[in-house]
Amino acid sequence: MRTSKYFLPTLREASAEAETVSHQLMLRAGLIRKQASGVYSYLPLGYKILKKVENIIREEMDSAGSLEILGPAIQPAELWKESQRWDEYGDEMFRLKDRHNREFCLGPTHEEIFTDIVRNDLRSYRNLPLSLYQIQSKYRDERRPRFGVMRSREFIMKDGYSFDIDQDGLDLSYDKMFDAYKRILSRLDLKYQVVEADSGNIGGSHSHEFMVISEVGEDDIIYCAECGYAANLEKAVSKITSIKSEEAPKELKQVDTPNASSIDEVADFLNVLPHNIVKARVYTNNERMFVALVKGDQKINETKLNTILDTSLLEPASEEEIKEIKSEAGFTGPLNLKDVTIICDKEVEKMRNFVVGGNKKGVHLINCNIGRDFTPDIIADIRSAKEGESCTRCGEVLSSSKGIEVGHIFKLGTKYSESLNATVLDKDGKEKPLLMGCYGIGVNRLLAAVIEQNHDEDGIIWPKALGPFQVSVIPVNVKKEEQLNLAEDIYDKLKDKFDVIIDDRKERVGVKFKDHELIGVPVQIIVGKNAADNQVEIKYRQSKDKLLLDAEKVVEALDSYF
Amino acid sequence: MRTSKYFLPTLREASAEAETVSHQLMLRAGLIRKQASGVYSYLPLGYKILKKVENIIREEMDSAGSLEILGPAIQPAELWKESQRWDEYGDEMFRLKDRHNREFCLGPTHEEIFTDIVRNDLRSYRNLPLSLYQIQSKYRDERRPRFGVMRSREFIMKDGYSFDIDQDGLDLSYDKMFDAYKRILSRLDLKYQVVEADSGNIGGSHSHEFMVISEVGEDDIIYCAECGYAANLEKAVSKITSIKSEEAPKELKQVDTPNASSIDEVADFLNVLPHNIVKARVYTNNERMFVALVKGDQKINETKLNTILDTSLLEPASEEEIKEIKSEAGFTGPLNLKDVTIICDKEVEKMRNFVVGGNKKGVHLINCNIGRDFTPDIIADIRSAKEGESCTRCGEVLSSSKGIEVGHIFKLGTKYSESLNATVLDKDGKEKPLLMGCYGIGVNRLLAAVIEQNHDEDGIIWPKALGPFQVSVIPVNVKKEEQLNLAEDIYDKLKDKFDVIIDDRKERVGVKFKDHELIGVPVQIIVGKNAADNQVEIKYRQSKDKLLLDAEKVVEALDSYF
Repeated sequence: MRTSKYFLPTLREASAEAETVSHQLMLRAGLIRKQASGVYSYLPLGYKILKKVENIIREEMDSAGSLEILGPAIQPAELWKESQRWDEYGDEMFRLKDRHNREFCLGPTHEEIFTDIVRNDLRSYRNLPLSLYQIQSKYRDERRPRFGVMRSREFIMKDGYSFDIDQDGLDLSYDKMFDAYKRILSRLDLKYQVVEADSGNIGGSHSHEFMVISEVGEDDIIYCAECGYAANLEKAVSKITSIKSEEAPKELKQVDTPNASSIDEVADFLNVLPHNIVKARVYTNNERMFVALVKGDQKINETKLNTILDTSLLEPASEEEIKEIKSEAGFTGPLNLKDVTIICDKEVEKMRNFVVGGNKKGVHLINCNIGRDFTPDIIADIRSAKEGESCTRCGEVLSSSKGIEVGHIFKLGTKYSESLNATVLDKDGKEKPLLMGCYGIGVNRLLAAVIEQNHDEDGIIWPKALGPFQVSVIPVNVKKEEQLNLAEDIYDKLKDKFDVIIDDRKERVGVKFKDHELIGVPVQIIVGKNAADNQVEIKYRQSKDKLLLDAEKVVEALDSYF
Repeated sequence: MRTSKYFLPTLREASAEAETVSHQLMLRAGLIRKQASGVYSYLPLGYKILKKVENIIREEMDSAGSLEILGPAIQPAELWKESQRWDEYGDEMFRLKDRHNREFCLGPTHEEIFTDIVRNDLRSYRNLPLSLYQIQSKYRDERRPRFGVMRSREFIMKDGYSFDIDQDGLDLSYDKMFDAYKRILSRLDLKYQVVEADSGNIGGSHSHEFMVISEVGEDDIIYCAECGYAANLEKAVSKITSIKSEEAPKELKQVDTPNASSIDEVADFLNVLPHNIVKARVYTNNERMFVALVKGDQKINETKLNTILDTSLLEPASEEEIKEIKSEAGFTGPLNLKDVTIICDKEVEKMRNFVVGGNKKGVHLINCNIGRDFTPDIIADIRSAKEGESCTRCGEVLSSSKGIEVGHIFKLGTKYSESLNATVLDKDGKEKPLLMGCYGIGVNRLLAAVIEQNHDEDGIIWPKALGPFQVSVIPVNVKKEEQLNLAEDIYDKLKDKFDVIIDDRKERVGVKFKDHELIGVPVQIIVGKNAADNQVEIKYRQSKDKLLLDAEKVVEALDSYF
């Protein structure tokens, strides 16, 4: 390829709205352009690299025995009504009507379509296991699209679905995908953690996320460096280290706390430590109200709450709703409430003589005790684990980091096969619902994640598997015949063996160098004034090493590098 | 690959709604499944072949110097309002709103997006010519989706756009794509015609369609076998062969034709030939009324009318509208009309003493003559050419056939660059609007077209470039060890060199044979009772030739076939 015939609109600066390095570099290197909020075009260089990522995924899927298909992006509402997700999905789903006023969505995911395919064409357990995947555009109307292609509204995903006759089969299919995902991330040279995860609105019992470690990640990971335990914050657990207090119960007293509402204010005012206060939050699922209690220095984990209460609809209650349970926003406590379910964290159970809200403005109670003053309806782990706490498996100290969720796999079980009636005949000729797994990996998000982990102040440093070209040949001064001729000679020699681009533009050499650093070509062959002696400079993007070399030795040097 | 691990749901019969052979065979061979009207999923076999078609297209685009990118399917309304096509596009465009109530469409085509990309990033004539393409799903809400993937609502298209500084550049870019399209169709072994075509609502001056010859084609082609002239019916011209009549003008007379309205009825009633009658049709473009006149045995070509009148909005007038011009539906003639433009076909100009409608119910006029009785506002070619007429270029007889439009290329000129303000600086430093071409080819329609031209009563006969597998190895009876073992041996030997599938299912051999014929694998290696003598049968799908062969000679035979 020649730069003069390529479309490589590099930029000195990215627009101010690009907050992350990957977003800035993808714009500056001319990989993507924005068409609307969360909607991007891929320019030639960007799409070339994206296809490399797709091919790595495709190879690993194929070698794991999954078969590639292509479902439609437009999906009929009827299917989603059968699975009962049409109403459940909410604002994130793009919906539209055709000319006959029939309802469709743009697929945010494809459980329904894939289940529909197999329910019509699979008859017997003998055709199982079956694993199908596609690489395709998905549509989610994100509340806040950001970070470029990292969180966009039209994005490319590999989503796959497995079908088995029993749990053992599903476990096997799941493990195969688990391993394939690890191979994909390794081939992309990514540093990552596999974490236990919540299944969210996809459903199912068992789920892992593949998290690329990065400061700009939107997810928090809790992990144990000792035993390898890792989970995302929504799911992570830590050991209960509090010992049941042996303090004698003191008399419950009402105290005025006129200007103190937050935990810190109350702690200051009453001169106690936050972990002697019990924090209460009121939630509603539109049917019933709930009060959740954790220690004052802990955070309530709403995902855990949703799971325990078997709902996905919990929302913080409004001031009016809080009044209905005979309480007051900012001063809620567990005593004397009306028509409410009290869920108490296991750590709270260990406490004695703690401070709680008085359910009146400017009032708290001290020396409150479970059993004597109130009785929780549910006691469970509802707090978020955090760095510095202890691992439930090995007792060592937990660490935390930020991660970019690039993959998510689920054991769905029979959730979709039952609602959509996807059954096969088993060995005994009985109809059995299929056991399903579902496996997603974000293709363009992977690209951004690679850049987050591989860049310097000059631009992107692609791993060898993804370099947009393998080699750039850069004549320093195209007006000097000996330089241009030698560069063209080298280009001719390389082009059948390597993916090479020659920079034949009439630009200042500084501009050229900057461009090739920015787009991250792994090796540059610079043809300058030493061309007279048939010598060139070879420069490696990653190490920044430079070396003067006989022109004849270029092929040899590249062979040994790649 | 093994059939036991593949997903190959073949059917004995396709559903009744599959009207064409390609639709029936794509369903029966398990290539596609319907998800909604005009919306399909591709199963593994279908998607495998589709990717082969895509790759052939991609190779030819790349070698023609076009660069692959990927635009979004979701396109903001603002862009389409800038080009003034948001309102123009009508019901065929899928429209939707996001959570903030902003309007989008699902791209039916991408002139706006590609023009937007270059207007932001192209600055100078030195970056030209530039040619960009993508292979992507397109969305058109067809009034009547049919013939499976041939006319569907979500379909895959390669669309490309070229950008040049002047007309010479555009001509060159256009010719390159013209040639690339011919190479693509040749590599797919298709019989086709390239025809001159109308530009329709895409716009521009110059346009060709690539028509695959087929009885089920929805387009009519007129062509001259002698000189190679070919055009679609909308655009085709034929030579005027009538000689100006030398008959003396006779007296204009009103005659009652009580029950005669159609040309045939009037001809019968008045005992004249249809070509002595002038047919009149009334149209409106919502601003003005038009009467079009052709010889009674000709058809009015509305596309030509639209082009001549520089509109795309002509519609037949209603009975009420016809009354407004002082006429009567079914009896319109060119005399004494009010506020109307009369457009007369060139053949009518040659006629004397002809019959016309009398603008009153049950009344015609005979012996009408141009000049004496009325004067047309416009005389032009407004009739449809037909088989049997003469070629305007060489005078030989024109033929006609049906065609499937698989490709369409346009010289757009500056239509989009002007409305979207896409300019570059020319040599003299002046802003100039880009000259654009646009080039579309229907990927899944090509697949269907290949099947229409390549099948027999047993199923699909893929050209070598598209076979889903190259070879099937079919053990006749998998329970007989010697057959299964020999088949497995042959499979092992072939699998690194050929794309081979072994049919290891415990099915009756008749079922297996039927499946492999149906899906159209080019060569079958049948391992039956001769396995004892280390012999197998080789069967060629296209020729139906069968040959007994030593197992050792299989590789050799395949080498010489492929």
